[in-house]
Amino acid sequence: MTADLARLAIHTQTIRSWDLRTCCAKFAAAGVAGIGVWRHLIDPAAGGVTPEEGSRILADSGLRVPSLVRAGFFVSPDAQARSEAIEDARRAIEEAATIGAAHVVMVVGAHPRVPLGVARGWVQNAMGDLAPHAANHGVGLAIEPVHPQYAADRSCVCTIAKALEICEAIDHPALGVAVDVYHVWWDPKVEEGIAACGRAGRLMGFHICDWKPDQADPLNDRGLMGDGCIEVARLGRVADEAGFAGVREVEVFSDHYWAMNADEYLKLIIERYRAHCPES
Amino acid sequence: MTADLARLAIHTQTIRSWDLRTCCAKFAAAGVAGIGVWRHLIDPAAGGVTPEEGSRILADSGLRVPSLVRAGFFVSPDAQARSEAIEDARRAIEEAATIGAAHVVMVVGAHPRVPLGVARGWVQNAMGDLAPHAANHGVGLAIEPVHPQYAADRSCVCTIAKALEICEAIDHPALGVAVDVYHVWWDPKVEEGIAACGRAGRLMGFHICDWKPDQADPLNDRGLMGDGCIEVARLGRVADEAGFAGVREVEVFSDHYWAMNADEYLKLIIERYRAHCPES
Repeated sequence: MTADLARLAIHTQTIRSWDLRTCCAKFAAAGVAGIGVWRHLIDPAAGGVTPEEGSRILADSGLRVPSLVRAGFFVSPDAQARSEAIEDARRAIEEAATIGAAHVVMVVGAHPRVPLGVARGWVQNAMGDLAPHAANHGVGLAIEPVHPQYAADRSCVCTIAKALEICEAIDHPALGVAVDVYHVWWDPKVEEGIAACGRAGRLMGFHICDWKPDQADPLNDRGLMGDGCIEVARLGRVADEAGFAGVREVEVFSDHYWAMNADEYLKLIIERYRAHCPES
Repeated sequence: MTADLARLAIHTQTIRSWDLRTCCAKFAAAGVAGIGVWRHLIDPAAGGVTPEEGSRILADSGLRVPSLVRAGFFVSPDAQARSEAIEDARRAIEEAATIGAAHVVMVVGAHPRVPLGVARGWVQNAMGDLAPHAANHGVGLAIEPVHPQYAADRSCVCTIAKALEICEAIDHPALGVAVDVYHVWWDPKVEEGIAACGRAGRLMGFHICDWKPDQADPLNDRGLMGDGCIEVARLGRVADEAGFAGVREVEVFSDHYWAMNADEYLKLIIERYRAHCPES
């Protein structure tokens, strides 16, 4: 780990051409402090290692593991699909415990045929059901508020305030919020929301990237810090002032960067982190 | 005007192949109650009629004119551009007075190189400068909260709450909010926001359309009511319960519908209005 990268973590999906072993070796060699693990890399059915093997690889790397990404998608008109999503989230909790991830990132789901109010009720019920299981495994469940552009099909929870409200309504200490600047930067209450999560002791994760005003695709054209208009450094300070002491997780989905040489891309991520989200 | 269309208005841009005279003739003949006028149709430099001629056409049609669309775009790193935007808004107010439009729709602007906090300050100053001019002309200024997907380049005001907060901070009766369901449907506080606008006497406009989960383009693939997932009828009732008694303005930008025969499209708009936002 390098001194001024002590709080830098990178999601495996950010450099998705690398498997878990490669991510761990490269990140550690570059001085990066942590890694956010996407589930397919610890799923043999998806070509990954077993969670147990993943646990050994991660432990050997010395990297911190803030997050396992992701579970959720609780919203479907089909009751069977809803039950399966909850079962899947239980497995994610167990996997997180196995690999030593501090929390599971929850993208809660939405469906065009399910009214938002109904969807939010189902999400709250699902999170309430899962919280004890998470606590029993020593794992947090972090609801990630997701940009309103995905409110029809990916997440009925679009604001920090709503994510925190669900946590507080259930009132279980295993629940928290993962703030991704891409999803919440536009919110006039973003600072207030981050501060409130901090006060409640529920600010579990902080994801960084950037919003490109001219994005070509709503899914896979995210920017690296400095490519767009998000005040990443400022929001990082807001989180720190709210008591957040965890790693900042670089999560970027980008056809552009995925096409780059991965070693060069890793260097660029570190360069942009130092320039646009410096550790003070 | 037809009994069950007594609150239906249509924006000229919704059927953009028609000029003002054609819109007025066709809307009135179909029993539609009102028309939202886009400015280029009353701008001779853009191929439109003069505002005075527009005024006569509108008066002869018997249509209600809730809105002139649009002014704003106050946010630019260039001070000259900011001044020009305010001057342009003054002209919009005068044009609205000439044609008898109740309010001007304000899309306030955003710029990738201007931090949102700065941008919002400029917007508040601009709205404060313009309010007396609007009042002197008997015209309202309605801030339209715009979907967060446009927060980098079109509007730094993305929520009803923020739009209302600006109105209340300036505390001038000429200021209000135009709620477009496309922009705010995802907001967990949408009902609360509409109700608050109503209580404050500031709910000036209500725009209807739909959000297609699979939209091909963030600008010109909006849905007609029933094409997507917005609970239009429910939000219409929320507005009515908040004291809104104005027309519902159909505002749809759609390459798909623009390619349709315009007379058929007008019939479809009316059919969808009756089905998805019925007057009770």
